[in-house]
Amino acid sequence: MPIYKAPTRDTLFIINELLRLEDYGNLPGFENASADMINAVIEEGGKFCAEVLAPLNLPGDQQGCTRNADGSVTTPQGFKAAHAQFREAGWGTLSAPEEFGGQGLPHVMGMAMEEFVSSANQAWGMYPGLTNGAVSAIIVKGSPEQKAKYLPKMIANEWLGTMNLTEPHSGTDLGLIRTRATPNADGTYSITGTKIFISAGENDFTDNIIHLVLAKTPDAPDSTKGISLFIVPKVLVNDDGSLGARNAVSCGSIEHKMGIHGNATCVMNYDGATGYMIGDENKGLAAMFIMMNAARLGVGIQGLSQAEAAYQNAVKYASERRQGRALTGPADPAEKADTLFVHPDVRRMLMDAKAFTEGMRALCLWGALQVDLSHKAATEEDRQAADDLISLLTPVIKGYGTDKGFDTCVNMQQVFGGHGYIEEWGMSQFVRDCRITQIYEGANGVQAMDLVGRKLAQNGGRAVQAFFALVDAECAAAKAKPELASVAERVEKANGELKAATMWFMQNGMTNPNAVGAGAHSYMHIMGIVTLGLMWIRIGEVALAALAAGTGDKAFYEAKLVTARYFAERFTPDAGALRRKIESGADSVMALPVEAFATA
Amino acid sequence: MPIYKAPTRDTLFIINELLRLEDYGNLPGFENASADMINAVIEEGGKFCAEVLAPLNLPGDQQGCTRNADGSVTTPQGFKAAHAQFREAGWGTLSAPEEFGGQGLPHVMGMAMEEFVSSANQAWGMYPGLTNGAVSAIIVKGSPEQKAKYLPKMIANEWLGTMNLTEPHSGTDLGLIRTRATPNADGTYSITGTKIFISAGENDFTDNIIHLVLAKTPDAPDSTKGISLFIVPKVLVNDDGSLGARNAVSCGSIEHKMGIHGNATCVMNYDGATGYMIGDENKGLAAMFIMMNAARLGVGIQGLSQAEAAYQNAVKYASERRQGRALTGPADPAEKADTLFVHPDVRRMLMDAKAFTEGMRALCLWGALQVDLSHKAATEEDRQAADDLISLLTPVIKGYGTDKGFDTCVNMQQVFGGHGYIEEWGMSQFVRDCRITQIYEGANGVQAMDLVGRKLAQNGGRAVQAFFALVDAECAAAKAKPELASVAERVEKANGELKAATMWFMQNGMTNPNAVGAGAHSYMHIMGIVTLGLMWIRIGEVALAALAAGTGDKAFYEAKLVTARYFAERFTPDAGALRRKIESGADSVMALPVEAFATA
Repeated sequence: MPIYKAPTRDTLFIINELLRLEDYGNLPGFENASADMINAVIEEGGKFCAEVLAPLNLPGDQQGCTRNADGSVTTPQGFKAAHAQFREAGWGTLSAPEEFGGQGLPHVMGMAMEEFVSSANQAWGMYPGLTNGAVSAIIVKGSPEQKAKYLPKMIANEWLGTMNLTEPHSGTDLGLIRTRATPNADGTYSITGTKIFISAGENDFTDNIIHLVLAKTPDAPDSTKGISLFIVPKVLVNDDGSLGARNAVSCGSIEHKMGIHGNATCVMNYDGATGYMIGDENKGLAAMFIMMNAARLGVGIQGLSQAEAAYQNAVKYASERRQGRALTGPADPAEKADTLFVHPDVRRMLMDAKAFTEGMRALCLWGALQVDLSHKAATEEDRQAADDLISLLTPVIKGYGTDKGFDTCVNMQQVFGGHGYIEEWGMSQFVRDCRITQIYEGANGVQAMDLVGRKLAQNGGRAVQAFFALVDAECAAAKAKPELASVAERVEKANGELKAATMWFMQNGMTNPNAVGAGAHSYMHIMGIVTLGLMWIRIGEVALAALAAGTGDKAFYEAKLVTARYFAERFTPDAGALRRKIESGADSVMALPVEAFATA
Repeated sequence: MPIYKAPTRDTLFIINELLRLEDYGNLPGFENASADMINAVIEEGGKFCAEVLAPLNLPGDQQGCTRNADGSVTTPQGFKAAHAQFREAGWGTLSAPEEFGGQGLPHVMGMAMEEFVSSANQAWGMYPGLTNGAVSAIIVKGSPEQKAKYLPKMIANEWLGTMNLTEPHSGTDLGLIRTRATPNADGTYSITGTKIFISAGENDFTDNIIHLVLAKTPDAPDSTKGISLFIVPKVLVNDDGSLGARNAVSCGSIEHKMGIHGNATCVMNYDGATGYMIGDENKGLAAMFIMMNAARLGVGIQGLSQAEAAYQNAVKYASERRQGRALTGPADPAEKADTLFVHPDVRRMLMDAKAFTEGMRALCLWGALQVDLSHKAATEEDRQAADDLISLLTPVIKGYGTDKGFDTCVNMQQVFGGHGYIEEWGMSQFVRDCRITQIYEGANGVQAMDLVGRKLAQNGGRAVQAFFALVDAECAAAKAKPELASVAERVEKANGELKAATMWFMQNGMTNPNAVGAGAHSYMHIMGIVTLGLMWIRIGEVALAALAAGTGDKAFYEAKLVTARYFAERFTPDAGALRRKIESGADSVMALPVEAFATA
């Protein structure tokens, strides 16, 4: 049975020492986040995830979900009861607005909790996770009546929410959807169509599920410009808030997937279901992107979460399993063999995981802070700067974070040798569950195209130029400190590769858009390296200051400095190789006709 | 249902045009390999795999194996019948010696067939595959009586064979094994102990299974120097070859694994089973390595095989699925969307797969030719040179080949988007099955240590120096040809990185062995890049010559030149990054105490 303990020490380090959340107490929405509150939420939230959710993870994978003959879905044993505990403790309300019953804490807090939930049980975490996505769309686009009717129940987790985009022939290309919304006389719409891959689409957690559904009205343009968004409750809600009749939406089947077995991935059939338009007609995609952007950060956190859980188990195994001897001579002569920890190649994998997870955690929580600041910073300029940063980095957090998260899970499984391949050890599940994070909410190739095709050029490149300047300034400052100089030099070099790749895109993209497309994935990875590098410089700065001040816990801060060095030495070299790949262009990528790919 | 068709066109290109197998007709063992024979074996073998084995792959994954109450194991439906067909057609005898009933064809032919078998059904292929490993040990180390008794039946696939190394506390470190071999008065041994992870350990294919088992005699040294190898038949074999009493060996349970569900991975209990020592007492590890080296090449082929199968399905999906529009404007304006093929990032993944699988196929078959030449070349010098090369490259073929094979499966799954995550499409299975190849027969970190810790230094570095010279000479020759110059320059540069990394190991390894260990995995990958690069230069040379000669099939050879260029542009840049990682040394890898890895 795999272990899990929330990394509260590291999370509190990031929130309190790196982000210094308390310093923002003058801003609206941050005043609730006192030091005591932060510590209590992180400690208690971490405990809940470790004690209640984690033990259900492996059994949930083995049991999976069952669709019953009546179309209802039974989730794995214990899932529903755990959700009742989650709901009662209010864990789903942390960052939700107070006016709808939330606790009004910064997103940073909700994001930290999301990591713990997902590490403990990704499949379970997706039930409240999708609800958060739906909530965010209703907050921004819902009418006052819609907000009043749905948000308090959804935020309280009394009802769950889902996102219905994909259809059998329409995934990334939402312009192809066929689900129809026919207006009724009373202002509602009649929704008909089939949606697939609907996570948490049907389940036994709550009395009601609020589906947000993309559909086309009769005269809508036949493209992404003709998509509208609808609220389609599983059970209709009366004006007094009580539940009414069952709506004409049902789960047709559930998928057999590689992982996240505990989450019901449903085919949803809408047979003239009553729907309520949310936002403007034909503007559904914009509303959808509100959900998507929130969801993409959440998926980035999932990539981290599986890497963290896998890492914890690999550390435990490597420190207990004895096999072979240290290359430098027996480390434990009294034993018949040394632990796996003595082997440099095992260490390499563990240090890779440590450098990634700690850096990625800093990046995700810093990203969540930018979401907060984009709404709540004191000046328009500050809000704009935060919004620029998080818009630019959302595809990086999602795409790079989940690619590296998956690689980390695979490496941590590798530490176990043959035992890693046996399901009862749980390492296979981390790999299988993590794999979906590279695919859903926009496959990582789509993230890369979002980054290079949309985000780079927005507002004349304002966001990326600000990012370059930010990294250069912090590298310059860190280079002045002997303990951080070599780290800063390597990150600065990687930033140089990123700038060069950006320039290459500018020079070649106009004449051949494929040149940008063929380099997009590599570009996203360089930016991931630079962004984590920025985090490691900042972590190094905080560690240095703490050591200088003698604040105690010396070993913790010294380990941060070593890990920063490891990151610089072992992650940044890839930036140069990725740039060379980008600069080789699209010719050899696009040259061959389809027939040339047949092998037989 | 996934598709599979044997890549016979490419295999025949490699055998006939790249390796020019016919040119070796003067050597013993090659005379049977006429052009007609080669073509017939490849075409018919490929057909058998595609038509008989491939359709059983997905159902076999879903059904898995069942251990019955009496300890017998039932394999998935159709597996046993397919084996009967395989046996009757003699597909298992291709490269086996004629004196024991084999067809005496070069290993190249057996290796080509192994790829097809494994692509079609990896779990199934492991049953005869393990038998081959056991056969190779008996051929080299068995007494004349043992050979006569076991080899004809095993080669004919009337009996299967297994390899029993691992115990619960003893995986990579075989010095720790506890299985005991107590001598009996009649010269046999009584074998007692528990072996785990025994692939094909028990099954319903044949009447008998010949287990090769590592165990310790009573006074053996308590290390790898005290291990002996035993033949332990499931059913004892009388002197006249008939089956006698059931031996005291049984399957205690079968594992629930991430993949290869169709192969029974058994816990094998030996309770005073009768065993026959093979080879000399305490020299079992040497005998084991005969099996292991054969098996490691076979595992490299498995990595390729899953990548190939996944690639074929991704090509099909990408050419049928319509989603989005080409960046350069609609490719199929009459359709509502273009195929996935127009998207540069999808192409990138497909070209990665094409460059890897075609290059890796050349490498594996060339490697198999070296195995043949190491035994059968005309001069001792040629035999030595071939043996040096294949010894050096075996860990690269296994380690790099399976790492890249797995990455390729993951990328091909990614081409399918959400559908790749659904089991019925079969892409998950390729990923899950391929994952074991990085682990078994020596995890890839162990391969890397074998390469840098053993193979590099053997005979004063003779093998690696010869390899460097070989690559440099072929790069120099190719640079003279305009069509190959840039490919050769990039491969030469990668070879330069490899030489520099080798030098760095020599300069730092003596004072700090961990410096070598910390760079071993990166080193293995650079050598993989250079070796595939060598193959692509050779493929390019052959393609150029064929185009110049106007031999027809112009598109095939032109595609080879484009793919060579793609390989050079997109694979070789990593060599420089990997060298930089190696040269960062072991300091930051080894600096932290175990306690620093705790996250909570």
